[in-house]
Amino acid sequence: MSPRGRRPAGENARGAILEAAREQFAEHGYDRTSLRGIARGAEVDPRLVHHYFEGGKAELFAEVMHAPVNPAAFIADVVAGPPEDIGRQLVRTFLGVWDDPDNQSALLALVRSGLTNEGITDQLRGFVEQGLLGQIMQAHPVTAGLPLRERRRRAGVIGVQMLGLIISRYVVELPGVADAPAATLVERIGPIIQAQLDS
Amino acid sequence: MSPRGRRPAGENARGAILEAAREQFAEHGYDRTSLRGIARGAEVDPRLVHHYFEGGKAELFAEVMHAPVNPAAFIADVVAGPPEDIGRQLVRTFLGVWDDPDNQSALLALVRSGLTNEGITDQLRGFVEQGLLGQIMQAHPVTAGLPLRERRRRAGVIGVQMLGLIISRYVVELPGVADAPAATLVERIGPIIQAQLDS
Repeated sequence: MSPRGRRPAGENARGAILEAAREQFAEHGYDRTSLRGIARGAEVDPRLVHHYFEGGKAELFAEVMHAPVNPAAFIADVVAGPPEDIGRQLVRTFLGVWDDPDNQSALLALVRSGLTNEGITDQLRGFVEQGLLGQIMQAHPVTAGLPLRERRRRAGVIGVQMLGLIISRYVVELPGVADAPAATLVERIGPIIQAQLDS
Repeated sequence: MSPRGRRPAGENARGAILEAAREQFAEHGYDRTSLRGIARGAEVDPRLVHHYFEGGKAELFAEVMHAPVNPAAFIADVVAGPPEDIGRQLVRTFLGVWDDPDNQSALLALVRSGLTNEGITDQLRGFVEQGLLGQIMQAHPVTAGLPLRERRRRAGVIGVQMLGLIISRYVVELPGVADAPAATLVERIGPIIQAQLDS
């Protein structure tokens, strides 16, 4: 858009970064998109990307996807407490975000397009794997030290819980999940997740 | 279609039953559709419905939805062994059906429309709750005797596992789940399900 060498300032720079991020996530998927590449696409200094998007790639992705939450803040909440509470805290924080009617329809729209549009599925997979599960595995002293293969398996079981929760509580509205108080699900699903982190 | 009082025979009767089932599932949802009502809609004797569809409502639903498997046979497989193996056997049988390339695309199409088309979501929810989970809860000596509320909660956690498996293995193709051998998932998810049945 802007001629070569010109550096957009203020909101223009922010807009250019988002525009470049949107293009590169769509073209390369989440995994192979880098902040450096986005800065290059937007013709801005990489430090400016960090300035506008402290939460890095995950935050940029959420903004491009019009997600109502900043994943960096979400993860910070989840790992703020003791490692032995990450499982329950993940479910607690997650349901806090999803049960909020201000967020729910935007999140549902995002998940629905992630399930039906292959291009978006690719991006969403990378984000769930690296941006969410990867960060959580990193935050726990046991899982941070595991070999990649075992770590992926455990992250996979956690992914099953989170994707299963979304689909059964908000999409299919399965009785026993859709009508359960959040605290009940924290007690039922939290320990299943925790078991993947401990031991 | 056929004039009042006329009873279609053979393939005609079977076709009329399917047609009536399709209409009634769509209009009333899975829960409130009865075999008696389908027989009435098809203008056939209810015994003829049982004759053509031994697996009852769940089998009729699967046929109407063009599902490649008969749920009655599926459940029979799952509960054939000892009660303490139902969890693993559910995952084993389920992955056996879903991993089979002959079934996968039809099942995926069904799930995708169940996630995006509200009318089909309603039908699918009733089928998952009553036709699948309900039957499994019934087959285990502990869960069969539980109060409805607790039974639904436990069925809900099992629903989270199964829906989470479908979405992460076949739709999102999450690493650690999509690329895991079936036997690994049987060992990881089976005991989570079993814990909802025992004790």
